[in-house]
Order: sequence, then C-alpha cells, then structure tokens
Amino acid sequence: MSTYIPPLEDMQFVIEQVLDAPASWRAQPAFAELDGDIAREVLEQAARFATEVLVPINGPGDKQGCRWSPEGVKTPDGYPAAWKQFVEGGWPALACDPEVGGQGLPNLLNAALFEMLCASNHGWTMYPGLLHGAYEAIKATAVGEIRERYLPKVVSGEWLATMNLTEPAAGSDLGLIRSRAEPLDPRPDGSIANGDRMAITGNKIFISGGDQDMTDNIVHLVLARLPDAPGGTKGLSLFLVPKFMPDGTRNNAWCDGIEHKMGIHGSATSQMRFERAEGWLLGEPHAGLAAMFLMMNAARLHVAMQGLGHLDAATQKAVRYAQERVQLRAPLRPADVPAGGGPDRIEWHPAMRRILLTLQAQSEGARVLAYWIGVLLDESEHHPDEARRRHCTNLVALLTPVAKAFLTDLGHRGADDALGVFGGYGYVHEYGVEQHVRDSRIAMIYEGTNEIQAIDLVMRKLLDSPRRSDALLAEIEAEAAACTADGLALEAGALTAQIATVRGALEALQAARAADPEAPLRVADDVLHGLGHTMLAWAWARSSRCAPRHASPAQRERKREVARFGLQWLLPAAQWRWQRVQDWALPLPWVRT
Amino acid sequence: MSTYIPPLEDMQFVIEQVLDAPASWRAQPAFAELDGDIAREVLEQAARFATEVLVPINGPGDKQGCRWSPEGVKTPDGYPAAWKQFVEGGWPALACDPEVGGQGLPNLLNAALFEMLCASNHGWTMYPGLLHGAYEAIKATAVGEIRERYLPKVVSGEWLATMNLTEPAAGSDLGLIRSRAEPLDPRPDGSIANGDRMAITGNKIFISGGDQDMTDNIVHLVLARLPDAPGGTKGLSLFLVPKFMPDGTRNNAWCDGIEHKMGIHGSATSQMRFERAEGWLLGEPHAGLAAMFLMMNAARLHVAMQGLGHLDAATQKAVRYAQERVQLRAPLRPADVPAGGGPDRIEWHPAMRRILLTLQAQSEGARVLAYWIGVLLDESEHHPDEARRRHCTNLVALLTPVAKAFLTDLGHRGADDALGVFGGYGYVHEYGVEQHVRDSRIAMIYEGTNEIQAIDLVMRKLLDSPRRSDALLAEIEAEAAACTADGLALEAGALTAQIATVRGALEALQAARAADPEAPLRVADDVLHGLGHTMLAWAWARSSRCAPRHASPAQRERKREVARFGLQWLLPAAQWRWQRVQDWALPLPWVRT
Repeated sequence: MSTYIPPLEDMQFVIEQVLDAPASWRAQPAFAELDGDIAREVLEQAARFATEVLVPINGPGDKQGCRWSPEGVKTPDGYPAAWKQFVEGGWPALACDPEVGGQGLPNLLNAALFEMLCASNHGWTMYPGLLHGAYEAIKATAVGEIRERYLPKVVSGEWLATMNLTEPAAGSDLGLIRSRAEPLDPRPDGSIANGDRMAITGNKIFISGGDQDMTDNIVHLVLARLPDAPGGTKGLSLFLVPKFMPDGTRNNAWCDGIEHKMGIHGSATSQMRFERAEGWLLGEPHAGLAAMFLMMNAARLHVAMQGLGHLDAATQKAVRYAQERVQLRAPLRPADVPAGGGPDRIEWHPAMRRILLTLQAQSEGARVLAYWIGVLLDESEHHPDEARRRHCTNLVALLTPVAKAFLTDLGHRGADDALGVFGGYGYVHEYGVEQHVRDSRIAMIYEGTNEIQAIDLVMRKLLDSPRRSDALLAEIEAEAAACTADGLALEAGALTAQIATVRGALEALQAARAADPEAPLRVADDVLHGLGHTMLAWAWARSSRCAPRHASPAQRERKREVARFGLQWLLPAAQWRWQRVQDWALPLPWVRT
Repeated sequence: MSTYIPPLEDMQFVIEQVLDAPASWRAQPAFAELDGDIAREVLEQAARFATEVLVPINGPGDKQGCRWSPEGVKTPDGYPAAWKQFVEGGWPALACDPEVGGQGLPNLLNAALFEMLCASNHGWTMYPGLLHGAYEAIKATAVGEIRERYLPKVVSGEWLATMNLTEPAAGSDLGLIRSRAEPLDPRPDGSIANGDRMAITGNKIFISGGDQDMTDNIVHLVLARLPDAPGGTKGLSLFLVPKFMPDGTRNNAWCDGIEHKMGIHGSATSQMRFERAEGWLLGEPHAGLAAMFLMMNAARLHVAMQGLGHLDAATQKAVRYAQERVQLRAPLRPADVPAGGGPDRIEWHPAMRRILLTLQAQSEGARVLAYWIGVLLDESEHHPDEARRRHCTNLVALLTPVAKAFLTDLGHRGADDALGVFGGYGYVHEYGVEQHVRDSRIAMIYEGTNEIQAIDLVMRKLLDSPRRSDALLAEIEAEAAACTADGLALEAGALTAQIATVRGALEALQAARAADPEAPLRVADDVLHGLGHTMLAWAWARSSRCAPRHASPAQRERKREVARFGLQWLLPAAQWRWQRVQDWALPLPWVRT
C-alpha cells in the first residue's frame, strides 16, 4: 500500500552540509570533476530507477520467489528485465576504476545508491550486491587473459558474480573449508602461479545468486585448498570458476537446490556443487583469505546500507500510515488543530509518537554515520596526503564493523517496531512492512555475523591498537568543541560525557584483558552497541550543528528537535552498555539444561 | 530439524515447589480432589498430544497455509484430524465448569496446556485459543434455548467459536464499530431483551477461524449496535451468530477472503461479511463490551502463554543447536573438557553463552510469572475467603497486562535472538526457528496491542488505584524477606532495591499526572517493561530460594546460577526504564517529516 520514497533531501543535507563531501572531493584528484550538482543528479537518477523499476517487483517477487529445477534457477518475474535496465544505466560500474571501464565515482555515492536499491527491493539487490566485491577481488588479483576476459564483464554487469565461501561445516570458521583444487597443467617443479588452470571440487552453501536467469554467464569466486595446503585459513586460495567456459561449454559448477528462507525470496540462495569444475587461481597460492579481506570494508559498508535502507523505508511507511490512520482521542493535539471531533491521527498518540520519533532519529543518525564511513573510505583510497589516508584507513577499520552490526540491528528491530505502528495491518503482506522485517534479518548474519563483527571490533580494531579509538575520540571531541562554539550546550555536553565514558570503559577493558583474556569477548556486544549509540549521538550533534544550512527552513528547526530527542530519550537508555563493559568481571556461567 | 520438548520438569518445579499450587488447591473446594500427581498426569498427556499430533503438522502447515475459495476455507493437511483428537481427549473442556460439562480443572493447568500447544504449533492453536473466551462469554450471558444449544457444543469443542470485534476502521478504537443489529421480532413497546432474535449486518476483519473445515458449525460472537444505540463503546451489544442455523440452513455469515500474513499461516484470518445474518442478543442491550471484558484476563493470560511458548521452544532449539555445532576455538572451555583439538561447540563461545543464558533465564522466569497469574486467577474465582479473592483479583488485574505485553515481547525478541544462534541455518525454514519469529509477532498486536496494554496498566491498574501496586510490592517484600532468611543476599538485595525503585517511580508519576496529564502516557511503555523486569527479578529470586526442593539435584545448583545471571546481567540493563519514568518531564515532540 505505502511505498518507499528515496530521501533525496536528507541525503543531500548529509552529503553536502553535514559531511561537506564536496570539499573532500575537491581535495582528491580522482574526484576533481565531481561536485554537489553532479552527485545530486546521479542520486536522482538512482532514485528513479529504484522507485520505478525495483519497487513494483518487490512485493510480487517476495510472493513468487525463485524457482529451482535441474535446468537452473528462475528468478521472479521482472527480475531479468530490471537487471538489463540496471546494466544499460551503467550502474554496476558506478564506483569502478575508470581504467577498467568504471565511472570512477566515490564509494559514498555507491553507498547511497545501494541504500535506495535495498530499501526498494532487498531480494533483487542481492545480485548486484556482491558484484562490487567480486570486482575488487578480480581487479586486485587477476592477471593476463583471465583479467581481460572477466574484469570488463563484471564492471559492466554483463555477467554477475558469486562468492563461494561457506560450506555446511564451515560458516564463521572458514578454516574448516574442505573444497579442493588440483592443477590441470602441473609444472614439473610442482610450482603453482597466479592464473594456473585448476579442477575445483567441493560443496558450497548459502551462495547468493549461485544460479539465476539474469545474465548469460556467472563468475563464481571460490575459496578452496590447493594440494598440500596448510590447514586452517592460511591454506585457502581463491579461484575463478565460470558457469560457462570461454568456448561455450557448460562447466561442472552446478546449483543443486535453493533454500526456502524467511525473507529475500527473490534471491537464489544456492547449494553449489563443483565437480572438477574448471577454473583459475586468482592471486598467489594460499592467499585467498587475504584477497577476500581486500574487499571486506566495502562489502560490510554495503551490508550496513541494507540495514539503513530497511530502517528508512519502514520508518517512512509507518509515519505515513500514522498520519492517515485515526483511532481514539489523543490526550494532546498539535496547537494548530481545532478542538472537538476525533478520533485522532495515531501519530499524535504518545506511544506512537515515541516509536516514530525513535525510528526517525535512528534512521537519520545512521545515515550520517554510514555516509561518513563512505567519505572516509574514499579518502583512505584517494586522498593525496598519506597521513590523511592512514588516518581515514584507521577510522574505516574501526567504524565498519560497528556500522555493519549496529545498523543491521537497527534496521531489523526498527522494521519490527514500524510493523507495530500498523497494528494488525502490519502483519499482512500487502502493507509491505512485514517484508522489511523478514528481509532485514539476514543482514545481521551474513558477511560476518554481528557477533563476529563485535569480536573483530574489540580484539583487532580496539584493544590491539588503541590509537584507533584515540583518533575517533578526537573526532568526537572536535565535534563537541564545534557545538560549544555554536552555543549548542546539550549537544556538546552529551558528546563530552560520551568521550569520558568510552575512554573509561576501554581503559577498563584493556586492563581486564591481562587478568582475564575472556573478558573482552564477554562484553564485545556491549562495546559494539555502546559505540554505535555513541556514534549516533555524534551524528545527531553534528546534524544539529549543521541544521542552519539545511535547504529547507522547516528542517532547520526539525533537525535540532530530532537531535534533542535522540540525545535525551535514546542515548541515556543505552548507557548500560558501557556500564556492562566496566562490569566485565561478572561471571558468565556455562550453559546447562 | 530440532524439535520442541515440553519442559515438564520445569513446569512441575514451578507448579509444585516455586508456587506450591497444591497448597492453593487444597484451600479451594473446587479443586479439593486435585493434587500434584493428577496435575502431572494431565500435563504429561498434554505434552504427548502436543509433540505427537501438533509438532509434526507445524512446519508443513506453515508452508501450505490455509486456502480460501467461495465454498469456504480449507485448513492445512492434518488440522481437522488433530482437532478431532483434541476434542476426543476432552481438552477443550479442561478448565470449564463441571456444571456445564467441563472438567473443572484450574486455569493454571489450562495455561500450561496452552504454553505447550502454542510452542508446538501456534497456527493450529489459534482455533482452540479463542474457544475458552467464547465459552466464558456465552456462559456469562446466554439464557434459555440459546444457552442449551450452544454452550455444551463450545465446552466440548464440537463447534468452534470466533470473536468478531475488529472492523476496517475500528481496531484499538472499538467505539468506531459500525456493524448493526435489528430485532427480527420487535415488541410493540420497543423493548429488547437477552436472547432476542436479530438480523446482523456489517463487515469484520482479522477474524481468526472465521471459516474453517474443522467443525460442522461455527459460533460467531459479534459486536454490533442495536437501533438507537449510543455512539462509542457504550452502544455495543454482543450477538451470537451461527454459521448454520438450527434447522441446517446456511446463515448469511460469509468469509469473503483470508489474509496473507507474516506468520500463523495455518490460522484462517478471515474477512467476514454479515448480511442480515440471523443471531441472538447475548446479555443486556449495550452491554457487549462488558461481556467481552469478562473474559479479558483469561484471554490475555492465554496470549502471554503464546509468548512464553515461543520463547521456550526457540530457546530449546538454539541450545541444542549450540551443543552440536562446532566452529572456531573457544577462549575457555568447561573444566572437564580435555585440552587440544577443536573446533569447539559454539555453546562455549562467550557471545553465544550470553545469548543462550539470557534466553533460558527469561524463559524460566517468565514461566514463574505466568503460572503465578494462573494461580491467582484461580484463587480470584474460587477461593472461599472473600478478602483473598479480592487480593488475587487485584493482582491479576495488575499483572495480566504486564504478562500479555512483556511476555509476547520476550517471546518475539527471544525467538529472533535464538535464530541468530543458528547463523545462516536460522534463516532457513527447515530448521524451524524462523517460524517462531514470524508466528510470535502477532501476539504483540492482537487481544489489545502491547501499547494498549501499557495504557491499561498505567492509567487504570496503577494510577487510578495505588493499592494494587502496594499489594504487589508487599508480595515482593515478602519474597525479599524469605530470601534474607535463607541467606540469599544477592536475591534479597536485588528485590529490596527494586521495591524502592518501583515505589519512587510510581510516586513521581502520580505527582506528575496532576501537572501534566500526558506524562503517564509518554512513559507507559517504560512502566510496563520496568515492571516486567522487576517481576522477572522476583521470579528468579523465588526460584533460587526454592531451588533446594527441585527434584533434580543438578537443577538445584543450576537454578541458583540462572537467578544470579538474571539478577547480575539482565536486571541492571533494564533499570533505565524506571529512570525514564522519573524523567517523565522530557519533551516528546510532534512527528514531522
């Protein structure tokens, strides 16, 4: 019933005013020709594609789902045609390197594009969702003929790609991968080199787009072990295995079935069987996981955008429903509403107001955080100043697991709360909100579960290199100072208090670690969520400070109001997370039944 | 894959040791012949029915769903046969009055029965779920021939019943109901009496079991307006409208379609059309809502059991999966596990341990709370001492909205967290946990949304009659004293602190109300959840105190451990709820876009 409207005005405010991305672009030669006008035009076109092409096939695609037969997977009606339009629009190449046929636009704009795609149709967006990661992996590793044959097709989107990591016994623990590869043209000295032809054998599961009817060929990237490879993750190599060989013969890479899932029914989650399938080594032997990690930050930011997309779409729909639906008398009404009459719009009822304001504050704050990571990611790659690149790389490494886990949590829980605003109608398919709940759940699991993100954050990104958190806290400190300068006492005070809280908790954890190595892992979830809430506070304060520059006068006051609501209602409710970090010594017993 | 195992041991511990229900039964003549042995036998039989009959048709019924045609609704395969078995087992009559053919067992046992039914198959359980409420309404209102014809059939379950309240424009706001009734045999003086024949016209939506193929006839209870009835809820009357008339002719009560929902696919959520359908007035004119409220506490406790059922079933499945699944090395292992080897069971990983312990603590605490309400409900109806009946009535009135909203929240969020333990497998239908997430969501909405429960709790149950909360706090105080006497300092301290917190918050709110009538509504959600967490703390403390009497020695230590975990990890994380009540003066702006 209610549809998704891309939030172009807010995107523009965040990109141009809150983050001043145009200034960042001017500092980077790669984006010298880009400005706010061009960026706006790109996002407007993306919004048109999302609403005109993807929104109409979202609900029907969920109902119809993918259908498997031994001949292959049939995606829902309209999916292949939408893909054709996406390719014709040049969207897959948006953030690819111009040297290999890409448009060379910033990761930031790609992130905003995928926010809209996912908000419109998560199932369909699974197909291009993995493409950019495959592009990064192939670009970083493929050489010679392989590079020439596959990279341009992946940049243009003429062929789609898959990532084959998971096996039935190897999920979070990729070290348990058993798939193997054997050289087809072994050298006498037994050496193996990038680009060597291989026979790959193994079973992979949960492979998104493992088969589909949208592209003529599929480029499978597969993690497997070379003969005599060491055990664990250090023995994994990356291979490129096409569905069809260059001579047109069918390769021995088969989709044996697809999963029946809670959501993203339009995405073919495939069980793959490689039976001495022909492929080529990508990169050095045993360097497969490193190649995967190359694209990890971009891929995880991409998943964070899915969380944001669901959160924003569900929020919009709930707000519009609450504006239209009338039930019961509200205890208070806005000042400009005449007395008498009723029933009242449910948006006036305190319980609904609170849910809707929470959703709006989280959605708008999350956008600032996610887009900031996009800006930092671009600068980490393209900024001419090496110290700046290093600074940005550090911040990206720190913030990416937070964004992936925290925003996908917010997206799913937020969609669930939005459903409640619709009452019984929310539970019914045709209102479109329950699909957000179902679709959004998977983003908390794949691309590293949210629990794995928390471990990565605490162990590798914080405790092993405290300078990263210092850099982040310095950014928050700068924002607090700017708020103080602008007379925003509430914002400045909240940030200053957060800095002390975060610093104290991390110091406590650093000290705890020596005495109790398990301590950081017991409270990793609290550190991640605590930091997520701290970053929302930063985002609200920054948006409040930049509010006077909003293009819409009404939004100038509203952005202040949203920030105040977030800082007063939502931030205090999350402080137990940091207290829990201080309480790291609490015993956590074994599970018994 | 993983199945539900009714928690008979824990049920027995809660019923016999924690709550000492047998002592309560001995004090009530209605249950004089009941003892722990009989109760255990009843629950064992119920467990057998749930696991042998309902579990096998739960997943398939979700996949198949109900199918509508103009001829009527076809429920999933196996549903009608399961209903036949349920009726033959005498289960519908379990808690009905022996005077009208019931077995006269306590509400407590009926609650435990429905916990198991819902944990096994929520979709199927929707059909008997409304039956007891219909029984209560008919028993309280129907007279003469109507009573004789319909009450025994509803007691035995030979005919199923529906509740027709909601209309497209009237959800939470029943005052907006437009359906109308017209006397078919008008008296000259225009008077209308209980049992009068009526023609009922109107459209109802979200009617569970509005049509089905499980029983030969369906007894629709319909809220509608008599001619010249006042507006609002005071003009609603209750009518009994059968699908088939006593002479076998088809009544004009039609199911025009069913909803396509997020979950409970086996339940036929019907759009009903009454076109001068024949029926009879139940009770006095304009007293329809009062008749509905008669059964409200029992019906809301019933929905709370759905939350508990999902929570427990999802918890069990997650724990068993975590015991079997191995991934990565755990930082610590239980003392009795030999060193070396790996990967380790995921139940040993701190992140999983924390989720699983949280689920177990919430599930076991929620059972104590829900069953206590069952005991109180029975005493409120059957205790020979009037003061005791009044005391129990007050506690039931106070605790029922808490249990309905808080336990359905816990059930849904808990099922969602349990899904995460399964990783990618959790998102796949065949593992059975994602269905708990989908099915459990509706319990937060129907039978009064959880937001409506919070308003009912704060406005009617707390602020309008502070003696109710005094009675509850006295119970908690008694538990704290008992814990102190048993040397349980942690438990006693936590409860004593809670009492002060709750009292302070409620006093603040009582004072706020005079200055700011909207204040209680802004923080109603916090009061409800705050009280829910306080009651979990009470349940853990009480279970800990009673642990030495557990039949299983291993559980004696474990129950203490669960209580400590709940009081140390979970209770502090919820204290912001009570702080929020103290902060009632925070401004809550209007929603703007």
